[in-house]
This record gives sequence, structure tokens and C-alpha cells, in this order.
Amino acid sequence: MIRIALDAAGGDRGPEEVLRAAALVAGRYDITLVGPRELVVSAARAAGVDLSPFGLTDAPEVVGMGEPPSEAIRSKPRSSLTVGLELVASGRADAFISAGNSGAVVAGALLMLGRLPGVDRPGVATHLPTYRGRIIIIDAGANADCRPHHLLQFGVMGSAYYRCTFGNPSPRVGLLNIGEEPSKGNLLARRAYQLLSASGLNFVGNVEGKDLPWDVADVVVTDGFSGNVALKTAEGVGEMLFKAIQAKINQRLRYRLGGLLLAPAFRELLSRYDYAEYGGAPLLGVRGVVVLAHGRSNARALRGAIEMAAEAVRTGVTEAVARAVEQLTVTGPGLGSRLGPDDGGIGPGL
Amino acid sequence: MIRIALDAAGGDRGPEEVLRAAALVAGRYDITLVGPRELVVSAARAAGVDLSPFGLTDAPEVVGMGEPPSEAIRSKPRSSLTVGLELVASGRADAFISAGNSGAVVAGALLMLGRLPGVDRPGVATHLPTYRGRIIIIDAGANADCRPHHLLQFGVMGSAYYRCTFGNPSPRVGLLNIGEEPSKGNLLARRAYQLLSASGLNFVGNVEGKDLPWDVADVVVTDGFSGNVALKTAEGVGEMLFKAIQAKINQRLRYRLGGLLLAPAFRELLSRYDYAEYGGAPLLGVRGVVVLAHGRSNARALRGAIEMAAEAVRTGVTEAVARAVEQLTVTGPGLGSRLGPDDGGIGPGL
Repeated sequence: MIRIALDAAGGDRGPEEVLRAAALVAGRYDITLVGPRELVVSAARAAGVDLSPFGLTDAPEVVGMGEPPSEAIRSKPRSSLTVGLELVASGRADAFISAGNSGAVVAGALLMLGRLPGVDRPGVATHLPTYRGRIIIIDAGANADCRPHHLLQFGVMGSAYYRCTFGNPSPRVGLLNIGEEPSKGNLLARRAYQLLSASGLNFVGNVEGKDLPWDVADVVVTDGFSGNVALKTAEGVGEMLFKAIQAKINQRLRYRLGGLLLAPAFRELLSRYDYAEYGGAPLLGVRGVVVLAHGRSNARALRGAIEMAAEAVRTGVTEAVARAVEQLTVTGPGLGSRLGPDDGGIGPGL
Repeated sequence: MIRIALDAAGGDRGPEEVLRAAALVAGRYDITLVGPRELVVSAARAAGVDLSPFGLTDAPEVVGMGEPPSEAIRSKPRSSLTVGLELVASGRADAFISAGNSGAVVAGALLMLGRLPGVDRPGVATHLPTYRGRIIIIDAGANADCRPHHLLQFGVMGSAYYRCTFGNPSPRVGLLNIGEEPSKGNLLARRAYQLLSASGLNFVGNVEGKDLPWDVADVVVTDGFSGNVALKTAEGVGEMLFKAIQAKINQRLRYRLGGLLLAPAFRELLSRYDYAEYGGAPLLGVRGVVVLAHGRSNARALRGAIEMAAEAVRTGVTEAVARAVEQLTVTGPGLGSRLGPDDGGIGPGL
């Protein structure tokens, strides 16, 4: 049975929601709750959740959502993040899931698990719902400042993840940019375009923000700043439009009647396009399975994150990412991780 | 009467749409159509638009949507862009509006009009509809690579524009970022945060993508890459959600009935939140009024862009922007445009 360490202290909705999620998968996975023991016990009582199917590892310190990541990890060695990641590092759990401070989870994973060989920057691969399916955006926020070869590595890691998860042997990789032509974009995007073109990945070129919902690529590569801006803008606009529709429906009797008839349709749409609660996002490039859940995750979203982590363990995502990055380092002199900070020496031929 | 030069050759929908827009404002503004004469005349016939109220300035060359901006401007001195901007430069028109290649419009404006004193980088100020109102995002794509002091100047220019346009004496300026805390973001955002904090602007701190639709600021400052990603993501998600709702409504008789009852409500929402056709975006920081319209603009959207340009002329936006930037250069040693490329020498006190 796959062993999952679950951060019971993380998330905006409190430990009750995490416990409810655990209850939803009890018996299917071997779940260890990680958090301040008393907090977990009293939350279980409040939520009416039976703790007996779960392990419980005490972690008395709590990392707040606004704390500076590295500082929080260093100053709180007994937080649910460090203790949970330590369970993975020591082989006592197969995966760790947290809806807590995502920067601190990333910092903790770097410190406790370390990077896979050849990986410069682990990247967060977030799932974004599209009209017909979903795309993966990597990096979604772990690396605000990136070099071109980081984006190449995100493409390689994202592809490996996509292959494992969806069985697609050659996922289409796009580069988030502000125009279609190779000459478009900032310096980072223009250089990354060259690296991706020469990479052997199934690179389909630039993808603009307006293309994101239309399934034009499977994996979209970008720096963590732009990726986070895109994801959070999608989240905000989706939320706003549903709220605007609701407000409109309440305006008149005729609209209220229409809203009543359409209620099941709206529920389906809301659940499909709720960007804030779309499962989780694996952190790719570290030695172990780590899944970040959205801070606002409810039990359903957290269950999605648990399933995602279990799937990653089952399909061997960590090993697949390691192999893909290793191959990149071998095949591409000038393409791998050995490049200097400026990607200096890349000839015009690339 | 305000004299408007209108690019008749630009835009995805062809010159007919531009002519229809001109017809909508005929008599209220002195409109000069700029484009290949024969094309304009035959389009007028096709669209059933009477050309007699308008001036027509021949510009036989056409700049395509995908052409590299600077090259297009240099190699086509008789394009509708260069000829139209020349009308403004020579004082024969008060404003120029184009739905054509926006990069080329910016390049052309830099060459033909030049920058206002002290302005390093003119910025595109795009209007984004929010739940209750609108915000201005600057820069929306003219400058893919920015320095911190460019973002400060965008804040100053965006504020001046907002003051003129909406009469708000102290618009709230936010910085697009990936977290609330001042320490969040990439190097550019972190340094820009310091400059904006010390600027005397009504700086309200970081604004995340998910906050954009919720009126948390009036002017949101960012580099052209992230700004463009945010705007186009908003556009794509909005379009996708409306399409998904439509598809859902067609699924069942009950939903179709609900859709029928809600049809007027959806029409209102679509027109309010259609990111693609929300008027135009002034280019701030050049010597003259230039408004970029979305390539997909229909006649209604183009009319919006014309009204926006006329309003900018009426309220003296160019002069207000010039004064604001001048004041910045005077008041802020270390804050103005005289800084080196790395903003070197900014002490920790900022």
C-alpha cells in the first residue's frame, strides 16, 4: 500500500479539512498525518473523523502562510513540513502532500530531499483545466528568476511527468510567450525558444496566454513568475465571472428561473473549471514525490492531491524525471545543466 | 473638433470594420482614414459606408501582423502606420489609432513622435474589466525586458493617465507580483517594490493575478512580458468559460430553456467582460496621443478606442504624463531616469 505523509497543519481551511480528505481515502492508502498532535486530535473530534486508520507523527511547530520560506524551514526543524519531508527522505513514506506555505514546502524539499542529479531547479508542475482537457504549466512559482536552461529542464521534466501520468509518449511542449514568432518575447523566452527547438522534445513553439485554455500544448514551460501570474489570473478571472453570473441571476425573476434550470450545469462547470481547487501540483526534480495543494483546498481538492501523489508513486515519476534529465545532460553538450549562469557560448546555430 | 487619424489597413477584421467605426463617430470627430486609397474606397463600397465626411490620406504600404516591428517601420516608410503617425508628429492630427501590428505601432511612435523628456520606455496602458469597474495595466507588452526604474515610470505615467481619465486625484498603484509580501517575486519586482514605496505615488503594494479582477488597485504596474501574459490569460479564460457555458446550454432541453431566459443577462456579461474588445490601450510616454486597439476589434471596439483617444486629447494626457515624469526626475535623485542600467547605488534605506 502506498504510504502518504499528509501535512495536517497546512492550508487555509484548517486541519479539519485535511482530516476529511484523509477519511475519503482511508483504507486505500497508508496515511500518516503530520502536525501538532493535540491540534490533530481536537480537529478530528470537531470534524467527526475517526483517527484509527491513520498514523500520526507529531510536529509541534507550525509554518505560517506568510513566513519567508528558507527562514521558516531553518528555524522550525519540527514543523509539519520538515517532519513530513523527513518521512519521505528516510523512506518511511512514499510521498508528502501539503496545502501549506508552498515556498516553504519547496525550500524544505530542497533541503530534506535534495535535487535529482543534473537538476538545477526543481519546478512546480501545476494542472490547469482547459476547454477539453488540461495542461501542465511548469514552473508555477518556485523559481521567480530563471535562466534559459532552467526552462529547458522544466520542459524535460514536465514531459517525463506527462508521459508517466497520461501515457502520452510524446507530449507537446509549448513555451509561454507574448507572440507566436520565435523572435517574440523577453531575452529569457527568446533563448529558451532556441534551446527547446534543439532539444529533441516535441516542441510546438510559443503559446500565448490566450491559447492556454485551448489545448494547444500538453506541457507549457515558463519561469515561475510568469507561470504564477498566468495561473493566478486564470483563477481570478474564472472566480470573478462565476460570481458576476450569480449576481446577474439574482437581479430579476426571469433570470432566477433561468438560473434554477441551469443550476446543475453551473455546478458541473464550477467543479470542472475551479482553478483554485484543481487537485495539486507535483514538485518535479527532487528526490521523492512532493505534491503542493492550493492553500484554499477543500477535502475534495486534497483528495485529488493525494490521488495525484499516489499516481506519481505508482508510475515512477521521480525515476522517469531522473532518467530524462540524465539523458539531457548526456546528449546535449551546451544544453544540459553544466552551462554557466549566462548560457554563454551558445552559438547562433542553436 | 478633435482630429483623429485612423489606420484603415490595420486589424484582423479588415478595413470594412474600421470604416464602420468611423461612420459611428462621423460628425463628432474630424476623422482622417489612412491606408491604401483603392483598398479604402473598395472597402467603403463593400461596407456601404459613405466616405464623404472623412479625410483620406493614401498610404500604399501595409504592415502585416507578424512582421518584425522595427524592420517593418524602417522598410515601409509609406505604410498606414508611419503615414498616420506622421500626421500626429506634424500637428495635422491630434491622435492616431490602429488595430494593426502593435509592436510596429510602438516602434513607429518611438521613431516618428519620440519620447517625452525623461521617459525611458513608453508603456502600453491597457484597460482590464474588473468585477465592478476597471483597472489599468501598464506595461501590457511594449517592453518585454524591463528594469526596476521602468516600472516606476510606468507607475508615474499610469497614475497621470488615470487622474486625467477618471478624475481620481490619487489612483492606487499596485505592483503585479506572485505574493503579497514585499520580499516576494523576482529581482525586478522586489526592486521595483522599493522604488514604488519611496515614490510618493499612492502605492498599495503587491497585487497577485487572482486579485486583478477585484478592484484592489487602479493602476497595476508590471513588465511588458508579465503584463501581456496576464491580459491574454484573462482574455483566453473569459472566452473559454463563455464557450463552455454555451456548449453546456446546448446539451439538454432544460438547459436550453434556462439559456433562453438568461440570454439578455449573458449578452450584458459578454459585452462587459469581453477582454478582447475592450476599447483600446493608449501608449503613454510618447509625444502625442496614440491608441492601440486589439487586432480583433469590431466597429464597436474601435469606436471605443476612438473615444478613448479623443478623451486623452481633451484631458491633456500627454501633457499630464510629461509633467509627472518631469517631476519624478526633479524630486528623486536615484529614482528618475538618470539611473544606470542596474539601478546601482540604491541604498538599503529605499
